[in-house]
Amino acid sequence: MPLLVVGSVGLDSVETPHGKVEEVLGGSAVYFSWAAHFFAPVRLVGVVGTDFPKHFRELLSKRAIDTTGLEEIEGKTFRWRGRYQGNMHSATTLAVELNVFERYEPRVPATFLDSQFVFLANGLPSLQQRVLEQIRGPEFVAADTMNHWINEKKGELLEVLKKIDALILNDEEARQLTGHPNLIKAARSIQAIGPKYIIVKKGEHGAILVTPRGFFLMPGYPTEHVKDPTGAGDSFAGGVMGYLAKRGTVTEETLKQAVVYGTIIASFNVEDFSIQRLNRLTMEDIEGRKREFEAMVRFH
Amino acid sequence: MPLLVVGSVGLDSVETPHGKVEEVLGGSAVYFSWAAHFFAPVRLVGVVGTDFPKHFRELLSKRAIDTTGLEEIEGKTFRWRGRYQGNMHSATTLAVELNVFERYEPRVPATFLDSQFVFLANGLPSLQQRVLEQIRGPEFVAADTMNHWINEKKGELLEVLKKIDALILNDEEARQLTGHPNLIKAARSIQAIGPKYIIVKKGEHGAILVTPRGFFLMPGYPTEHVKDPTGAGDSFAGGVMGYLAKRGTVTEETLKQAVVYGTIIASFNVEDFSIQRLNRLTMEDIEGRKREFEAMVRFH
Repeated sequence: MPLLVVGSVGLDSVETPHGKVEEVLGGSAVYFSWAAHFFAPVRLVGVVGTDFPKHFRELLSKRAIDTTGLEEIEGKTFRWRGRYQGNMHSATTLAVELNVFERYEPRVPATFLDSQFVFLANGLPSLQQRVLEQIRGPEFVAADTMNHWINEKKGELLEVLKKIDALILNDEEARQLTGHPNLIKAARSIQAIGPKYIIVKKGEHGAILVTPRGFFLMPGYPTEHVKDPTGAGDSFAGGVMGYLAKRGTVTEETLKQAVVYGTIIASFNVEDFSIQRLNRLTMEDIEGRKREFEAMVRFH
Repeated sequence: MPLLVVGSVGLDSVETPHGKVEEVLGGSAVYFSWAAHFFAPVRLVGVVGTDFPKHFRELLSKRAIDTTGLEEIEGKTFRWRGRYQGNMHSATTLAVELNVFERYEPRVPATFLDSQFVFLANGLPSLQQRVLEQIRGPEFVAADTMNHWINEKKGELLEVLKKIDALILNDEEARQLTGHPNLIKAARSIQAIGPKYIIVKKGEHGAILVTPRGFFLMPGYPTEHVKDPTGAGDSFAGGVMGYLAKRGTVTEETLKQAVVYGTIIASFNVEDFSIQRLNRLTMEDIEGRKREFEAMVRFH
């Protein structure tokens, strides 16, 4: 089933202990789409400026990523500059330029309105809400968020939470949103607001899937060669949602498999800058590492 | 098969957000023994002062913990005072009094010399070494260590590492010992020094078991009610070694099961101060939570 994503498309400048890149293809919707398109056709909704390089748009179009919803408007593309140091656990943001993203009024193309699976990537909650209002009866909606919106737009974020089926967020965000230091308590308290399913990302430590029935604990894949963590969370979400859209049905079983695929895709993504690693990835690579990973987590 | 442990026996004063206790039974060898005795008879080697409360010794004797090797010498018992705050991830040590531990010359009783399974709990590497020299051809020796010895006694610690089969240590210690921020690389580099098996403890995030053949990833049990994390690592090690001693053979399969039992025992231990939770624990409780945990980590 087709999968719609709305989120940022931008130019990233990133420095890690393993190198430095300037104005490469980035943004939450880009990482998400690249990860998800291995499993299902992706419909991308977002905005770029007139300076967005043509070859980046071509890169997207070569894939099963429909860019009909990628508007180009007068002005500069969204830009992010960040640095990872030491163990690369978190980025230091050196500069953010919202540019065209600041005055973006999302319009979901008519051909996208029947999307059954929808992902609201990290962004202004009111923007997430306006996209959701346009879709006609989606089957499964998931969203991501970040500390900034929890601090600045909590009321609007809570409105979004009431309308979605799943929230994908990291451990610190879960604690921040709920005030519970304990992740299980935090996840339960988010469930009480609305979303039936919570996926708490713990970076290299894996993820916890919380369903109405229970918890599922997934260790992280032990990546030995992390070059650039940018997009890890978005590619994880892309793997999760892509697999669910492929299966066309959300159950505890498909969700568990989806979290495994998300983990695998994210582990590849961090092995190179931008979408370079995902761009040379094959379904065989994914299935191979998934088998390897399943052997590592099989304890009985 | 009988399991010998050498380590500290002491009086802990601990403060956490959930309460405060003064001079309760503690020490690495105590937590280890309590966890291990559910699986195999434990032989404890350690030292206390003349002020060690009689009822603590009685508590130990009531269990399958042989205290023949627990010497009492003139002076005060080892004491530790610590505080856990916020998410309780790590303790702040407020005071340590080595007392009788400082001049302790470990003597393994004659009836303990045939111990097949040996655990050298965290302590001065030269003391670990002197215990090991006394045992006659043990089948399987594991050790723990800590940041202090890595900093202050690295040469002696490396000598111990050459003589043991397994090292159990936490993630930060693995990084500190090897200089590798990546845990898999760190574990491999410790293997190159000597121990065939490395178990890297990651607190609430679980553990990684590294064998000559590969890695096994074990998430942490999502404990909702952490009251006092003291002894989590020692009770984990006790569960691991206790189970191995019970099975009497160390293979990749028994090790994987052992890590599961270690995880379960540690998850109970942190639910109360001192050894209180372990003291009212039954084998049924352990097997029950193990089944529950296995369901949480089953992804296929």
